Amino acid sequence: MNIINIIEKKSLGKELTYEELSYAFNGYLKEKIEDYQMSSLLMAIVINGMTFEETRNLTDIFIKSGKVYDLSSIGEVIVDKHSTGGIGDSTTLVVGPIVASCGVKMAKISGKGLGITGGTIDKLQSIPKFNVYLSKMEFLENLKTVGFVDSSQTDDLVPMDKKVYNLRNNSGTTKSIPLIVSSIMSKKIASGADIILIDIKVGNGALIKTKTDAKLMSDWMKKIGTSYNKKVVTIISDMNKPLSNSIGNLLEVEEAMNVLKGKDCALLETSREIASILISLAKKITKEEALEEVDNAIKSKKAYKKFLEFVSSQGGDISKIKIKANIKVVRSKESGILKAINAEKIGELALKLGAGKINDRQKIDYSAGIKLFKNVGDRVEKNDVLATLYTNKHINLSNDDVNCFIVE
Amino acid sequence: MNIINIIEKKSLGKELTYEELSYAFNGYLKEKIEDYQMSSLLMAIVINGMTFEETRNLTDIFIKSGKVYDLSSIGEVIVDKHSTGGIGDSTTLVVGPIVASCGVKMAKISGKGLGITGGTIDKLQSIPKFNVYLSKMEFLENLKTVGFVDSSQTDDLVPMDKKVYNLRNNSGTTKSIPLIVSSIMSKKIASGADIILIDIKVGNGALIKTKTDAKLMSDWMKKIGTSYNKKVVTIISDMNKPLSNSIGNLLEVEEAMNVLKGKDCALLETSREIASILISLAKKITKEEALEEVDNAIKSKKAYKKFLEFVSSQGGDISKIKIKANIKVVRSKESGILKAINAEKIGELALKLGAGKINDRQKIDYSAGIKLFKNVGDRVEKNDVLATLYTNKHINLSNDDVNCFIVE
Repeated sequence: MNIINIIEKKSLGKELTYEELSYAFNGYLKEKIEDYQMSSLLMAIVINGMTFEETRNLTDIFIKSGKVYDLSSIGEVIVDKHSTGGIGDSTTLVVGPIVASCGVKMAKISGKGLGITGGTIDKLQSIPKFNVYLSKMEFLENLKTVGFVDSSQTDDLVPMDKKVYNLRNNSGTTKSIPLIVSSIMSKKIASGADIILIDIKVGNGALIKTKTDAKLMSDWMKKIGTSYNKKVVTIISDMNKPLSNSIGNLLEVEEAMNVLKGKDCALLETSREIASILISLAKKITKEEALEEVDNAIKSKKAYKKFLEFVSSQGGDISKIKIKANIKVVRSKESGILKAINAEKIGELALKLGAGKINDRQKIDYSAGIKLFKNVGDRVEKNDVLATLYTNKHINLSNDDVNCFIVE
Repeated sequence: MNIINIIEKKSLGKELTYEELSYAFNGYLKEKIEDYQMSSLLMAIVINGMTFEETRNLTDIFIKSGKVYDLSSIGEVIVDKHSTGGIGDSTTLVVGPIVASCGVKMAKISGKGLGITGGTIDKLQSIPKFNVYLSKMEFLENLKTVGFVDSSQTDDLVPMDKKVYNLRNNSGTTKSIPLIVSSIMSKKIASGADIILIDIKVGNGALIKTKTDAKLMSDWMKKIGTSYNKKVVTIISDMNKPLSNSIGNLLEVEEAMNVLKGKDCALLETSREIASILISLAKKITKEEALEEVDNAIKSKKAYKKFLEFVSSQGGDISKIKIKANIKVVRSKESGILKAINAEKIGELALKLGAGKINDRQKIDYSAGIKLFKNVGDRVEKNDVLATLYTNKHINLSNDDVNCFIVE
């Protein structure tokens, strides 16, 4: 076998065998195949695609590159959730405490954000003293006692994904359904949960731009899950506008807490939906029954208390949260209806304010971010406040920076 | 401008601007853009192609990466020829002496062979003491006095092509018409000749597999030539069978000398064709008149004497040529008609015998190669000698190695 032949085969749009994929990707992991050979193969995959068979095989090769977590010692059904990434997506911080407070255990391994998409690990790390680097023992202990645990991806979990993901990011080869599916499913399967919910975000603020792509992704993820005895459910949700009214790490933690305390908003809706699906599957009850449990957990503050328990179980100190930033006000330049809030542009603006980073040399400002004060469809008068921007940078905002709001 | 955006734009099949191509390729030459980014972009070009406009722009960017040779001091029309690479293609060694002996000056910058395709520089270097590294002064002096000069590509001639060509070879991105056109045309234009003949080889033994591709390549090369005030002519020739009966460096030199001494074979036919086109264009005479000059040059031994003059002008010593190798005989296993001699497989066999190399760590054995004793269409009896193999390696030949001959 020869890497050049494999690359050329894929460049002609032909299907690669398990052995060929393994030769290429394991060779890359073992540094026998060069970065420039793998990126060339990845681009051929981006453009020519992969069949379901190839995607399932690649997922398997990814999984086998590292350890597979065994959570069977807990003796209960374990759930997990994953979002393909969006703007202002802090559902994990809301869903985890809800399901745990309803007696369903959620074990989550999260990643850092990159580019305009925030990562749950960054949000958790914005809480003073919060520890995202749990040992295997601590992870299992917290899962058993608290019922919700969220830890950073360790080096032994799908090491191939880490190396390939980094290359994809630097070689313009991120936008590929088979590659996204393999990356997500390998990590979710290796993480050990029994029931996995994937929230596929679609829209201008997401990696997946069309419903057709999301549907295909959903089908493949479910089929791959089945072949590993995992129950995979998916929801496809809109990411043309930000998911919550807060974007930025501490602002999103604050917003998640508000929702858990009962604030009614879009973030609550998505979280109720995800939590009720997970609970109904884990407890084998109807979705309506599960929804009732969810609403009770919020109303009774059980879910909020679980959030506090979760944070302190990982060493975090809520009382020390302090948002320190200069606030700039964005006002509407005209009167009319707020037609759109462009999620992609909001993400880019948050990045500019310091809420995210595009490479490892940059540092995230946890206080930076955006609060939105109007929803799509709202009546807006000239000079109404549309948003407040939180930043510690000295930046001059141009019209281009705030054209995420369309008032007509 | 940003390399990731440029790569993604091409991965979507969009046309890149001159500025974008320049940013990517000049950035790569200056090592601001990584190998794995360039190989990803190259693969997107291989699969999605480039428009003529992009190809012309890329050629221009290639040319401007180095020096452009000025041959105007010679005061005469200078011709050049190039073959896209084939098996047993020693036409340069025949055509150069013919046209020079007819009073038309040919200035050639040649490359080394790679893979199954031989390179003219390797063939010349197989002649003891032959110097392929001429200074600019020596190059011009020999062109003036001998009328035919052939020197190795120097570092200042299209340095971008050298770097990109090497990466293409190692990343499975060789098979692309726009990339082949840019690579060839940039070198030919920078080499300074006024009339350039490109011999486009088509078939299983060539980089270009179909006539349609060859036709497109021909059109683009001519149009690019025109925009630099160069007369570009092309011939499209068959490379499904080897061009001559000898494959391998010294064996090809020997065969070229035999043809110049009057041997009638396929190599003579192609060489007469190319030489007569070049002479008719340079002297502004008809092709028939040119053909007469060519035949006279061979008959009178003028062309053969020019070959000897050319070799000694670059320090080579014909008298020291000695082919040292073990000879293995390949016999026909059955009686019938020789239906095909697969050029690609003959090339691979020659490589195995030591006649070529696939990377810079390997060394070429100038004596290694293949002599063919039957032509396609010949009647062959069982046990007839089809070929003799020259090698200094200890190799066991399998049936697979000699399945280049189809007798039915």
